[in-house]
Parts: sequence; structure tokens; C-alpha cells
Amino acid sequence: MSISVVLHPKLPEGVREYVSALPGLQIVTPQDDEGVARALQDGGEVLVSFIWNESYLSPSLKWVASPSAGFDQFPVAELHARDVVITTGAGVHADAVAEHAFALMLALTRNLGTAARNMAEAKWQRPLCDEVFGKKIAIVGIGRIGDAFARRLDGWGAEVVGVKRNPATYSGPVEVIHPVSALREVCDWADILILTSPAQVDGSALIGAAELEALGAGWIVNIGRGSLIDETALIAALDSGELRGAGLDVFSKEPLPADSPLWTSPKVLVSPHVAGSTPAFGKRYVKVFETNLAAYRGQGEWMNLLGRDIPL
Amino acid sequence: MSISVVLHPKLPEGVREYVSALPGLQIVTPQDDEGVARALQDGGEVLVSFIWNESYLSPSLKWVASPSAGFDQFPVAELHARDVVITTGAGVHADAVAEHAFALMLALTRNLGTAARNMAEAKWQRPLCDEVFGKKIAIVGIGRIGDAFARRLDGWGAEVVGVKRNPATYSGPVEVIHPVSALREVCDWADILILTSPAQVDGSALIGAAELEALGAGWIVNIGRGSLIDETALIAALDSGELRGAGLDVFSKEPLPADSPLWTSPKVLVSPHVAGSTPAFGKRYVKVFETNLAAYRGQGEWMNLLGRDIPL
Repeated sequence: MSISVVLHPKLPEGVREYVSALPGLQIVTPQDDEGVARALQDGGEVLVSFIWNESYLSPSLKWVASPSAGFDQFPVAELHARDVVITTGAGVHADAVAEHAFALMLALTRNLGTAARNMAEAKWQRPLCDEVFGKKIAIVGIGRIGDAFARRLDGWGAEVVGVKRNPATYSGPVEVIHPVSALREVCDWADILILTSPAQVDGSALIGAAELEALGAGWIVNIGRGSLIDETALIAALDSGELRGAGLDVFSKEPLPADSPLWTSPKVLVSPHVAGSTPAFGKRYVKVFETNLAAYRGQGEWMNLLGRDIPL
Repeated sequence: MSISVVLHPKLPEGVREYVSALPGLQIVTPQDDEGVARALQDGGEVLVSFIWNESYLSPSLKWVASPSAGFDQFPVAELHARDVVITTGAGVHADAVAEHAFALMLALTRNLGTAARNMAEAKWQRPLCDEVFGKKIAIVGIGRIGDAFARRLDGWGAEVVGVKRNPATYSGPVEVIHPVSALREVCDWADILILTSPAQVDGSALIGAAELEALGAGWIVNIGRGSLIDETALIAALDSGELRGAGLDVFSKEPLPADSPLWTSPKVLVSPHVAGSTPAFGKRYVKVFETNLAAYRGQGEWMNLLGRDIPL
């Protein structure tokens, strides 16, 4: 029996093409938000989307297949109460996001943001740059992305630690893992913080004024979620604290509002939530989707299942 | 007997401090170009400088100790004819330059130059980004810098080859080394070219229109010397060819003239010849200088000697 799959109009590169090519599916491709809601009211069972809207709730909806790693955009409790399964794209982005985090880190140490901004005025200004070699780097919320980042640090001569809610469950390449309760001490130790975790369940910040003060004259990179950093504290640390720079792909509000001081701070590099962007996305994501399609048909196990594989 | 050492007013971070702290030297620190020339006419034996000016030639000058890796700025034949020894800072910059090349490469694949330039207008524009993972990378003119770059690629899942005038003399970490005569074929194979060599002896370009056409829809990074690329061909490949981007730290004329189209090309990231910049420079360079100071005093071997360690 054909399964009705609704593809949201906004999907990462290649997802539409690869999912549409799978056999046995009735693919619906609405052009806008209202169309998505209508398709779900008209019997859509599966929604492929990283975007959520109240109007998507429908009696026929059985499975939300998100290509994103984070899931704070979904009303998880409500969907679970209706027996709607939620799966994520956790891990699919890992390589691209790790490379993006690395790009932001190096752009900070080598002052490339300033160099790029100076181009408009043909300004040849030579700042002192710094090295990752010998630096102390903490990967906060280490998981698949953090592991992919850590593997890429292999030949760089940096010291690396991870921070994780439950260090006992860690089995990746980083040798030293601290619990989140030691975050302040880790910030004190580190030169560079790389935030790679999903949003906190309660949406609270992990990095506030105290953590930024402990970090001191270091750099911070965030490719996790905007809510992980208290933006007001960040702006204060950039303006009047020792903080040397911030490379940010995620923000408490996206798109970043035009009046945010982050756009104009000379120490900030704003990247428009593209860390997961890669031409290989669709090809990689469809493997997760196929596995879960089989599980949906009662054949085999779910993958990246929210509430089981991925703790809430 | 005290040796008269003239420190040029423009020196990399820390060189002045570390060299001045060495025992048995009579340190002269002129404030400008004329002062340097005067100090050398007044009996200066050693000139520490990466800048050269005709007026520096003097009967007392015995040793030009350059902290730079390149040496095309010096009248080598003329200095050698006068028995003036020339040493370079080759290798001292390797870590910083390798990191800078990596930063430029990632800024291209992740579109960070565009992101930074969009900040002035608070423009949230999300391009498709790419990955280094799986890419084919050629390090052209592989030496100490290229080796430092290659080691940093360890955990990145890229294929790497080197290009070297005489592959038989190579003993670094890259397994496949092609001769310069195969450069066209290497460009055809590669997705990313990293130029790490000093200038050609005759100042000619290694990368011209044919090599850029062979590279096709790839990226090019130059932290070697501006003369290595035919800039006119580069601009044409950026404007109307397939070339996806260029990350440039060096230019045929520096500072890059204000009317150069490289300043305004959306595919270019201009960095103002800062690849070697690092707070650790002085500390590392003084070790080379001390070794050579001993050789100057007749105790031990020269290091980074132009014409012997470093072929002309």
C-alpha cells in the first residue's frame, strides 16, 4: 500500500530528489505552508520537514521525519501523546557541521572576518593572527558532530577535552570528557569553546556571563543552537570583556534581526545557519529515511528515534 | 668581541625582543629606512630584515638574516659576490602559514568571505556550502609549509598529493609526489590547489590560464608568492571561467592596489599577507638566529643558508 509522504517546500539540498525516487510512496510536494497543512489534513501520513507549524497537526499524521539534528522546534510531548513518531537527521550533518565549526574557528584565529570586511574599502590592514597549535579546546555537548570535529583536530597539536551531560556514556575519540557540572572549570582552562550540543530541554543557556568571564581572552564558536549562549552576556563580553571573538552560525532568533549588535561587532563572524549545508546531504539523509521507512512498514528498527535513540 | 646587529624597524612579532636579549651583541634599532642604511654604513655587520633596499649595501655588511621564507626581495647574486651570507626564516612560519592556508581553504568551501561581507548590510543569505571531505587536494611546491598543511589534513577524509620540482628529494608525510612537469595533469585531477612554494627563480607564474582551465570548478589558495599565479588569467577564470573561488594572502604587487578587481570579486578572499603572523614567531625565529650566530662566530654549521640548505 502506498504511503502518503508530504515534503515540506523548505528542505536541505537533495532531500526532495532522493526521497521522491524511493519506490512505493505517494509523494506530495506543496509549495507553501498552507499547502503543507492541507496535504496533512487530506490524509498525509509522513511529514518530511525541519520546520513545524501548529496547522500541521492532523489525524492522519503518523511520522515526522526531520532532516535536522535539533528538535526543539517540534511540540514533542504533544506529538508523542498522539502516537506520532519523530525521527531526526542526527549524524547526517556531522561532517559538514564539523567542517563549518572548524572554518569559523580558523576565521577567528586568522582574522579572516576582518579581512573580508576590509575588502569593500580595499583596506590592507595587517593584524597579528594566532594559531590553533598548542591551544586548549573544549567541545561542549560532544556527540557525533563534536567527534567529527575532534577527529579533524588530529594533526593540529591542540589539547582537546569534551563536555557531556553523562561522560560515562561517551565512546568517541576524545580522551578526556568532563560532566556539564564542571563547565565553569572547563571554560577557565580553555582557549577555545566549540558548542556542538542541541538546545537544552528547557531552552536555557549553557554559556552565560560567568562562563564567558572564566573563558577570558579566548574564542567561542557556536554551531549548536542559539539558545546555548546568553546573547546579552555575549555582547557584553565582546564589547567590554576580554573575549577575543565569536564565530556564530546559530542565534536566539533567526534570521538574526537587523538591529542585533552581533552584525556590527568587529570581533564577530555571523554565518547564516548554514553549518549543515552540503551537496552530499540528500544522498546521506535518504539512507536514514529508508531505514525508518522500513521500520514504519514494520520491517526492522527505527533509527534516530526521538525518545529512544535520542534522549529528550 | 661584540657583533654589531642592525634590526630593521619592520620585523615580525617578537623578533626584536628575542634577538635583543641575546648576549654579546651590539644591537642597533634604527627607526626608519634611512636609519638602517646609516647604521650599516657605520659598521653594521648583521642585518636582521625581510625588507631590502639598495642603500643597505655597505662594506661592513657580512650577513643578512631574514626572518622571511621567501628571498626574491634580495639581490642574491650581488650579495653573494660580495661574500655576504644570506639566511632565511624558512620553516619558522610553517605552522602559522599552514593554518592560514587551511583557514582560507575552509572560508572558500564554507562561503565565510561572503558571510562576513554580508554583515555590513545585516544580510541573511544562505548559500549552499561544500565539504573538504572526499575532495582531491594538490599541494604545489610542497616543502615545510606544505608538509605542515598535509599533517593537518589527517582527519579530513581528503585525497592529497604534492607537487615538487624534484620528487626524489621529498621525505615528508605525503605519499604521492608529482614533478612540476605534471602540473597540468595534477590541476585536471584536483578540486583544490594549495600553492606553498617560494617564487620561481625567474619570477614566472606556475599557474596560468591553462592550469586554471584544467582545475575547472575548483578552488585555489595561495600563501606562497603572488608571482606564482598569473593574476590576469586568475581574474578571467573568476569572472568567466568555472573557478569557484580563490583565497589569496600574496599578490603580484603588495599592498594589493586599490583598483585591483580582486578586491571586489565575490569569489575572492583577500588576506593582507599575514599567513606567517603568529605571537610565537620571535620565540621560534631566535633559535634559528642563535644557531647562525654561532656559525658566524665560527662555531658550528649554518642553518637555512641560501645557496646551500635552500637552493637558488
